[in-house]
Amino acid sequence: MIKPITLYTFGTPNGVKPSIFLELLGIAYKTVVVDISKNDQKSDWYVKLNPNGRIPAITDPNFEGGELTISQTGAILQYLADKYDTAHKFSYPAGTKEYYKTLEYLIFQVAENGPMQGQMGHFKFFAKEKIEYGINRYEAETKRIYGVYEDILSRNSANDSKYLVGDRYTIADIALLGWANALSRADIDIHQWPLLGKWYDALRKLPAVERGFEVAARN
Amino acid sequence: MIKPITLYTFGTPNGVKPSIFLELLGIAYKTVVVDISKNDQKSDWYVKLNPNGRIPAITDPNFEGGELTISQTGAILQYLADKYDTAHKFSYPAGTKEYYKTLEYLIFQVAENGPMQGQMGHFKFFAKEKIEYGINRYEAETKRIYGVYEDILSRNSANDSKYLVGDRYTIADIALLGWANALSRADIDIHQWPLLGKWYDALRKLPAVERGFEVAARN
Repeated sequence: MIKPITLYTFGTPNGVKPSIFLELLGIAYKTVVVDISKNDQKSDWYVKLNPNGRIPAITDPNFEGGELTISQTGAILQYLADKYDTAHKFSYPAGTKEYYKTLEYLIFQVAENGPMQGQMGHFKFFAKEKIEYGINRYEAETKRIYGVYEDILSRNSANDSKYLVGDRYTIADIALLGWANALSRADIDIHQWPLLGKWYDALRKLPAVERGFEVAARN
Repeated sequence: MIKPITLYTFGTPNGVKPSIFLELLGIAYKTVVVDISKNDQKSDWYVKLNPNGRIPAITDPNFEGGELTISQTGAILQYLADKYDTAHKFSYPAGTKEYYKTLEYLIFQVAENGPMQGQMGHFKFFAKEKIEYGINRYEAETKRIYGVYEDILSRNSANDSKYLVGDRYTIADIALLGWANALSRADIDIHQWPLLGKWYDALRKLPAVERGFEVAARN
């Protein structure tokens, strides 16, 4: 029997990625809200789990040879796909071209889309000084990156440009969705990229995705 | 027979990661220098290979079912480990705890260390305006992240804190090395973190690593 996974998270663009995927997979999990507004992610008990002191993390009691705790959304999503999507509803078999393209676009999200959009948010909303240079730099880079994703979708016209890779949603789509959802807060409309706009609207119609977005409200 | 891999790269902190690993693995490869000082990474022929228009990328003619082209250093390194390190000299078997910890720290590098140190470099050296806020923000974040890696090494005292994961160098170490090497340009001495300082010095003594760093000089 599968024991519930513990998800340590908060309702941020990174924090909703694992919950969206867990809901899509239909796996039992319990949520521990790590309140970053109170800096709980820097508390001793959490830093023991994740030396980086950032959410999210998961602990899986079903891991062979003892519990596994893992952080970094790219690693969490890949782990969940490997272990719990053996039917490949949201992934491709290891070693295939689609498997590695999924990994490439997943890493593009965590290494470029997330960090640059995150810096845009910092300079637009959180910085104590108003620094036009920072706002402009990170807004331009964020838009460039969404333009690249639009190009990636356009190259998948064999599948009506509905998915980043092949004929199904993967962890590359889920990772991007977490941040695509936050674009409107920065007054950027994802529909200025026509394929991304359709991609976003289609994903938001899935009940499992909506449940995943609500994770931070639960305890 | 193994045909040579083509590596498209330039001598940047990201650009040397695949060449270091290819040298450690002892795999035949040829290098195509993509001169980013001339913006060659945005040329049509390169963007066909990598829609993101950034170096590095590899093309592997040995891939089953036709050539594979892959970008993003996190994905390139993982691919090379999966396919060419079946003896696990620089990796752990898929599905093990060490495999996922390697993935976690690899992604920590590409998602946090690289982007934040990259922004520090931008504000210190490339920005046309001198913006103290940006310099301070990214220098503090870069130092925080190296502090986390020091903590990660300290937790591996069972292996004399020589490796990020377990008893061998992995792609997590190689990814970090690319950026650790660039710290001195920003007047940051890695030896202020004692374990990282030893880790860095030990890696720099490996001839394969030195050959990997020289990649951009070749053509």
